[in-house]
Amino acid sequence: MFISFEGTEGVGKTTLIKSLVDYLQQQGKQVVLTREPGGTPLAEQIRQLLLSPQDEAMSENCELLLIFAARAQHIAQVIQPALNAGQWVLSDRFIDASFAYQGGGRGLNVDTIELLRQQFVPVMPHLTFWLDAPVELGMQRAQKRGALDRFEQEKLEFFQKVRTVYQSRAFAEPERFIRLDASQTPAQILEQAIAVLKQNQLLTSN
Amino acid sequence: MFISFEGTEGVGKTTLIKSLVDYLQQQGKQVVLTREPGGTPLAEQIRQLLLSPQDEAMSENCELLLIFAARAQHIAQVIQPALNAGQWVLSDRFIDASFAYQGGGRGLNVDTIELLRQQFVPVMPHLTFWLDAPVELGMQRAQKRGALDRFEQEKLEFFQKVRTVYQSRAFAEPERFIRLDASQTPAQILEQAIAVLKQNQLLTSN
Ligand SMILES: Nc1ncnc2c1ncn2[C@@H]1O[C@H](COP(=O)(O)OP(=O)(O)OP(=O)(O)O)[C@@H](O)[C@H]1O
Ligand SMILES: Nc1ncnc2c1ncn2[C@@H]1O[C@H](COP(=O)(O)OP(=O)(O)OP(=O)(O)O)[C@@H](O)[C@H]1O
Ligand SMILES: [Mg+2]
Ligand SMILES: [Mg+2]
Repeated sequence: MFISFEGTEGVGKTTLIKSLVDYLQQQGKQVVLTREPGGTPLAEQIRQLLLSPQDEAMSENCELLLIFAARAQHIAQVIQPALNAGQWVLSDRFIDASFAYQGGGRGLNVDTIELLRQQFVPVMPHLTFWLDAPVELGMQRAQKRGALDRFEQEKLEFFQKVRTVYQSRAFAEPERFIRLDASQTPAQILEQAIAVLKQNQLLTSN
Repeated sequence: MFISFEGTEGVGKTTLIKSLVDYLQQQGKQVVLTREPGGTPLAEQIRQLLLSPQDEAMSENCELLLIFAARAQHIAQVIQPALNAGQWVLSDRFIDASFAYQGGGRGLNVDTIELLRQQFVPVMPHLTFWLDAPVELGMQRAQKRGALDRFEQEKLEFFQKVRTVYQSRAFAEPERFIRLDASQTPAQILEQAIAVLKQNQLLTSN
């Protein structure tokens, strides 16, 4: 069982994933909590390159390829082995973020990203929780955390384009891509996520 | 004018490129000397990830994508601007190394590498000097330099596969891909490289 969590900055992905991992572990599930970009020591080094503001402008193609490099490592070292061992994998962002950020935000060609997906991403999430709210809301929440990373420094317009791509992906794949209203309280959001897992018969509804 | 230099470890690429840059500058040419992976501060950070031995096994796809990420940055920041400004660009390794090392050495699918080339590499070298010698010769030369990097730690067999790919690329593109016998002295090799430039009317033969 492979679940990813998506959404713009600060909407509450990390908050939800942590509480869901706690819940699943209480249900006796073996759960691997991981994130992108990152998830292995090497992929976390690539994350550093991607997130830390650089003196040099990073080309859009370089950004795209670095993200897929980190993802290739993450899949090989973490996701694939855990799924093979029958564990649950919960990833804070995955492939949809590339379509949303590099495709929507940066304006890169979707076909190019799709091509990288076909070549380098042999696993897709069974379910994706998309935490959705007006981008301003998440940015307010995230700003409390201090220094902004290279993506957080982008303008509102960038994140609006990101959100629009998530929207169209939810529309295209309604079975996999589940929208959760991120303006609710953490407890409400968790409850809805658990309800979705039960509906999908991934958890018994006792 | 864009020239790349290829060959297995320690055959003398850096030695030749340096002396050729000196020669071209004496001829009044504006020359940019660069290398792969690397060539910009960010791409050099990616080079570090690629070359330094890691605790974690680097997946072959991750390696391939990191190299193309560094190359995308190198093209955008260095190669393309220099060529647009009418300068000579001499690069210590370029795209052929991906076919030789990741394709030949690692055994990755050539079609996948070709696909990355089509999507992310809009410039090809006008000329490529391939320094060729039995791989043992270069490895003996390189070993004098001390600690071995992640590629230099590979077995002889790996470099023999790398050499075979260079061989077939020279065969397929005889106009661009020029073999130089790397078992000769540096002075002989330089002389032959200059003769090739003159034959191609890139330099006047006065
Ligand atoms: N439903 C919620 N209501 C109010 N505040 C929330 C909610 N969920 C998370 N927060 C708070 O908002 C901030 C951002 O939350 P969190 O780190 O979970 O978001 P995120 O989506 O993981 O952000 P990022 O994209 O930067 O990783 C935190 O301070 C968190 O406590
Ligand atoms: N033609 C030559 N004859 C003898 N020694 C040489 C020759 N060319 C280079 N060398 C020596 O061999 C060593 C490796 O040369 P060089 O660094 O130029 O190779 P390289 O192909 O750039 O290696 P690498 O693949 O590791 O970058 C150096 O010590 C250099 O002085
Ligand atoms: Mg988070
Ligand atoms: Mg060298």
